[in-house]
Amino acid sequence: MAKMASRLSGEERLIARYFRPLAKHPGAFGLLDDAAAVVPPKGCDLVLTTDGLISGVHFFPDDPAQTVAKKALRVNLSDLAAKGAAPLGFLLALALPRNINASWLKRFTRGLKEDAAAFVFPLLGGDTDRTPGPLSISVVAVGAVPHGQIIRRSGARIGHAVVVTGSVGDSALGLMLRRAPGLAKRWGLSSRHREYLTDRYLLPQPRTAIAAVLRRHAAASMDISDGLVGDLTKLCRASKVAAEIEIERVPLSDAARAALGNEPSLMETLLTGGDDYEVLAAIPGTELAAFRRAALKRGIAATQIGKVVAGAGKARFMDTRKTQMAFARPAYSHF
Amino acid sequence: MAKMASRLSGEERLIARYFRPLAKHPGAFGLLDDAAAVVPPKGCDLVLTTDGLISGVHFFPDDPAQTVAKKALRVNLSDLAAKGAAPLGFLLALALPRNINASWLKRFTRGLKEDAAAFVFPLLGGDTDRTPGPLSISVVAVGAVPHGQIIRRSGARIGHAVVVTGSVGDSALGLMLRRAPGLAKRWGLSSRHREYLTDRYLLPQPRTAIAAVLRRHAAASMDISDGLVGDLTKLCRASKVAAEIEIERVPLSDAARAALGNEPSLMETLLTGGDDYEVLAAIPGTELAAFRRAALKRGIAATQIGKVVAGAGKARFMDTRKTQMAFARPAYSHF
Repeated sequence: MAKMASRLSGEERLIARYFRPLAKHPGAFGLLDDAAAVVPPKGCDLVLTTDGLISGVHFFPDDPAQTVAKKALRVNLSDLAAKGAAPLGFLLALALPRNINASWLKRFTRGLKEDAAAFVFPLLGGDTDRTPGPLSISVVAVGAVPHGQIIRRSGARIGHAVVVTGSVGDSALGLMLRRAPGLAKRWGLSSRHREYLTDRYLLPQPRTAIAAVLRRHAAASMDISDGLVGDLTKLCRASKVAAEIEIERVPLSDAARAALGNEPSLMETLLTGGDDYEVLAAIPGTELAAFRRAALKRGIAATQIGKVVAGAGKARFMDTRKTQMAFARPAYSHF
Repeated sequence: MAKMASRLSGEERLIARYFRPLAKHPGAFGLLDDAAAVVPPKGCDLVLTTDGLISGVHFFPDDPAQTVAKKALRVNLSDLAAKGAAPLGFLLALALPRNINASWLKRFTRGLKEDAAAFVFPLLGGDTDRTPGPLSISVVAVGAVPHGQIIRRSGARIGHAVVVTGSVGDSALGLMLRRAPGLAKRWGLSSRHREYLTDRYLLPQPRTAIAAVLRRHAAASMDISDGLVGDLTKLCRASKVAAEIEIERVPLSDAARAALGNEPSLMETLLTGGDDYEVLAAIPGTELAAFRRAALKRGIAATQIGKVVAGAGKARFMDTRKTQMAFARPAYSHF
């Protein structure tokens, strides 16, 4: 019996089997120590952010394990990118219910591995626990920016252009389709459009490629995770300004335009639904052309949707008749 | 209705009310941004560790909210200390069930505030979510060590002294008493001893004061969170050595001795129970006296319990008759 003291515990076996292969950062010590060591890149500050996913709250229990893993990393990579930071690595805290089996863990860690490689984002360390509750995945992302160059929400000034990357609202429609697949027919969507929207919900595309471009040209920036209206309001509040947006300039995907054509009331959903993971930025007029060019060179469209104006933390959305739009539920909030 | 877009969401109100007062680190940006910025102290590496508490798994739902908060910080501070790192700050990911009310949050954040002040450990950022599951508190601790000086588990060499701080096993008895208060009578405990043991379970004492002493004198170190036997085995495995421990040298509190006197079979519990949050270290013979002196100067007793010997990742615990002790369950593991 005494020799049992040299046996690996269940937790150690779990870590060795599923997570050690992901811990390629030298400071992760192969997950064989109590903590990770990160040597900050010369002249850089570290940027830390955390975002978690809970089964049944942030994803569906039957979403593919691989995409759940990728989403957990990408929502955090999106925050780093919007702050102008390059990814260094992540910590992972997992609370696993008993019904999570080896097959699920294998697919989950395959997803982590693929994105850790794609975004050069190695596992630094973590914590695994059993829970009587739902599966919970908490990621802490560690990034680096040149000293003092993190891009805040608070730098927007009157006259700056308000810019968003990619397209807005796809994920909100994707979530609705996930819940009620019949909507695809009502919205007159082709199967290609339906798949596009569902995929935008399942798998965010963090704008990692333009972190350095944002540092060079943006005065304020954040990622859109709780919807354009709510997040622009937060940016305005932090900057003590207001913003005036022309709704028809808000970039929409072909799929979203198709749905909107059949159901105009979806506009509110597009502007206030969450999970966009696009970048929202305030860009000084003199930088705008250079910013858009540099972003496009990296494959990312950036669209001016309005401008920063005087005011106290408000975002006004104007329709083509210059009428201010009213929202029943301006931002997503769990509380 | 449109003016709602400038109102705070429920989550923003929660953060503003309970957590912003804790975010005194300049890089926390008052929790008004998406990420925190940490300027690494000159010449230092950052040390990152994460440990979480789940209600019903790591603490009792009716444990005082203040001590739950402190325990969540302290189990992480304990890891930093054992790695030789000074605390810089923490991130907090909270998953809150609906039954958590304002009174609980107030007491919880009071606990955080008291320990953040006591350990100079400000809140850097975090994430709050609703959960249909149990309350879950995930803390990421950020610390700093002079470049390359993190103390690993892997530095123990043949001939080093095996040393532990404080006393071992109190918390395991405290947990048993929490579950079955009647044991106090069976073990013949005074009310002072009973309170001492219960308190050791509720409120770990991280050995923050000796982080620098460990850096100067220790070859390997870790904190004891899963029990002395299991954690020493891990240290031996990481160092590719074995350890021989004389059980009668293991430091026990008066309260633990009293219980053991009445129930000798508790020895296994003392050596294998978790939640000690003492430091376990391998100290070269030439450093031992200086280490013990420096620790004692900071109010922390350090006791040699055995030595590092040749072998492959095993820890042998010998009784007074030089017989090796056998353990039914050498280490705590949730898996």
